[in-house]
Amino acid sequence: MKRSVITGTGSCIPDVIIRNEDFLAQPFFSEDGEQIPTKPEVLVEKFRKITGISERRYARPGQVASDLAVDAGRSALADSGIDPETLDLLIVAHNFGDVRSSGQQADTVPSLASRVKHRLGIRNPACVAFDVLFGCPGWNLAVMQADAFFKAGMGKKALIIGTETLSRIIDRYDRDSMIFSDGAGAVVLEWTDSGGGILSASALSHCSTELEFLQMEPSFHPEAAEGPYYMKMKGRKVYEYALTHVPEAMKACLEKSGCALPELKKIFIHQANEKMDEAIVQAFYGLYGQEAPAGIMPMCIQYLGNSSVATIPTLLDRVRRGGEAGHFLHSGDLLLFASVGAGMNINAFCYRYP
Amino acid sequence: MKRSVITGTGSCIPDVIIRNEDFLAQPFFSEDGEQIPTKPEVLVEKFRKITGISERRYARPGQVASDLAVDAGRSALADSGIDPETLDLLIVAHNFGDVRSSGQQADTVPSLASRVKHRLGIRNPACVAFDVLFGCPGWNLAVMQADAFFKAGMGKKALIIGTETLSRIIDRYDRDSMIFSDGAGAVVLEWTDSGGGILSASALSHCSTELEFLQMEPSFHPEAAEGPYYMKMKGRKVYEYALTHVPEAMKACLEKSGCALPELKKIFIHQANEKMDEAIVQAFYGLYGQEAPAGIMPMCIQYLGNSSVATIPTLLDRVRRGGEAGHFLHSGDLLLFASVGAGMNINAFCYRYP
Repeated sequence: MKRSVITGTGSCIPDVIIRNEDFLAQPFFSEDGEQIPTKPEVLVEKFRKITGISERRYARPGQVASDLAVDAGRSALADSGIDPETLDLLIVAHNFGDVRSSGQQADTVPSLASRVKHRLGIRNPACVAFDVLFGCPGWNLAVMQADAFFKAGMGKKALIIGTETLSRIIDRYDRDSMIFSDGAGAVVLEWTDSGGGILSASALSHCSTELEFLQMEPSFHPEAAEGPYYMKMKGRKVYEYALTHVPEAMKACLEKSGCALPELKKIFIHQANEKMDEAIVQAFYGLYGQEAPAGIMPMCIQYLGNSSVATIPTLLDRVRRGGEAGHFLHSGDLLLFASVGAGMNINAFCYRYP
Repeated sequence: MKRSVITGTGSCIPDVIIRNEDFLAQPFFSEDGEQIPTKPEVLVEKFRKITGISERRYARPGQVASDLAVDAGRSALADSGIDPETLDLLIVAHNFGDVRSSGQQADTVPSLASRVKHRLGIRNPACVAFDVLFGCPGWNLAVMQADAFFKAGMGKKALIIGTETLSRIIDRYDRDSMIFSDGAGAVVLEWTDSGGGILSASALSHCSTELEFLQMEPSFHPEAAEGPYYMKMKGRKVYEYALTHVPEAMKACLEKSGCALPELKKIFIHQANEKMDEAIVQAFYGLYGQEAPAGIMPMCIQYLGNSSVATIPTLLDRVRRGGEAGHFLHSGDLLLFASVGAGMNINAFCYRYP
């Protein structure tokens, strides 16, 4: 039986390392414009304990999101071994486009997918290149889109990239800026009967009060210039939302796959925040009256931060290449991918490792 | 046999009318920063003869692209008569996000689809809301995506909107700025066996030298501030590209549908430029050794300009509601939709009017 199978992975981990210590001299302000009086060492250590993040990566000043995407895409293509000219789809998930380090204006014309196709030297016009915006779960959604195209007979091979330079749109006077990072991850997805593949997928959009949990707002700095907006997160609301809805979405997706919980070998969850991710996975197992098994959830947020759409394909690439100690994938393993982000949106898919 | 059928259409035609005369006092510069010496009346009349545009619409200062999308979407939903809570997909095609009149920063978080879902009051979380970026053919691509989801069994009802405020990202010192306008168009697409629907679809992406035919560049004004970028078009290159590739793509799509040319009743083509559109349609018929029949191609560019992703659904809505003199649709009519734009991208779909 033919299914959508990941036949190659790649990622781009930007060069610039920003350690938590690098924020010790950074004044932070609260939403009401008051400077946060907490001692920097205490503030940063509290941040590390909650999010799990010790360091994160930023793109170099001359790089933009599509540059990172090219590196990740090239790596995934090489890993898969396919001829890039045989691709039917090239999908890039992002949320902010190419944002130069010198300004805040997003550049999305032509689409990032067009730029990536150009830079990869893919000439076949039947390789259709487009971008998808769906908050942090955008890369998962792009995988679902390719899966839909394949099932509809509208293609057999796709390069699917998630790329973002959040360092370009964060407010450095906002503590939450320490969470976010830059990066890109990619997979080649093929419609084959090689044994594994996507077993089920589901997505949700909650856009009532949830709309404003992640949105663009002015800087917290009381003397900030009128004009530029920055990505702002209502952290507690996001946490409560995720804990309420993500475990159920994961359960629904697993049930749709027809597989049983004990089969599940790894959960690849959006690297949003270590404590939140752990709580989601515990709550998911809790729905079955069980404890989450040790080692079920690889994490790379500790040293890569939250790079939005890039976290899951990057983490998958790291694990496949043996870069995450103690985490290995074997033929037949059942994997669950899940993400949550701005919208608010959630999605998940179950995958049999081929 | 079930197919994807358009069961409702809607559009938002912004209030602010900008006539060609309104540009008579506007100095224009060429790419090399020289002021164009042509007398304003001559320049504007030459513009009208080539593009067919006499006036165009701009959004009001307080409106953004998602506002226009809400109006178009609400109208399409009302026209279809479906319960909005039964939607599986809400897809918004655009290229620049929400750009406020006070600045040039695009706002795409949360996605425009999330904003539209919020404003339409749709609460069902199973209605998945996302954005697509594919240049001007983005709305056509969104239709193809919904069609793929339907065929894959991943949904049965979609609201598909194209929205753009090009007035916010054009360089007013560039003659080409007179082409562009604001607007939104929408359809409800349903997976039903009511007789008509999408018969075939195809898409192409040429991203070699074509990448730079439409891209963001500084103003032509020699004393323009460093920083903001504007949408710039290499008009001649776009024209040559479109004439070379769009007629063949239309022919390939028609052949895929299994229908013969004489069956074709209307061509809904992206309202890019009247002369170019006429040349494309003539070249398409030329591939069959025929002349384009009179009345095959409704046009609204004369009074609406080129509103990118919004032109085709807006034109369709106008024709369906009897707003385009001499153009009517009848059950069983074969229609061909085609678009071309930044990327460069092309797509087309054949549709049997139900």
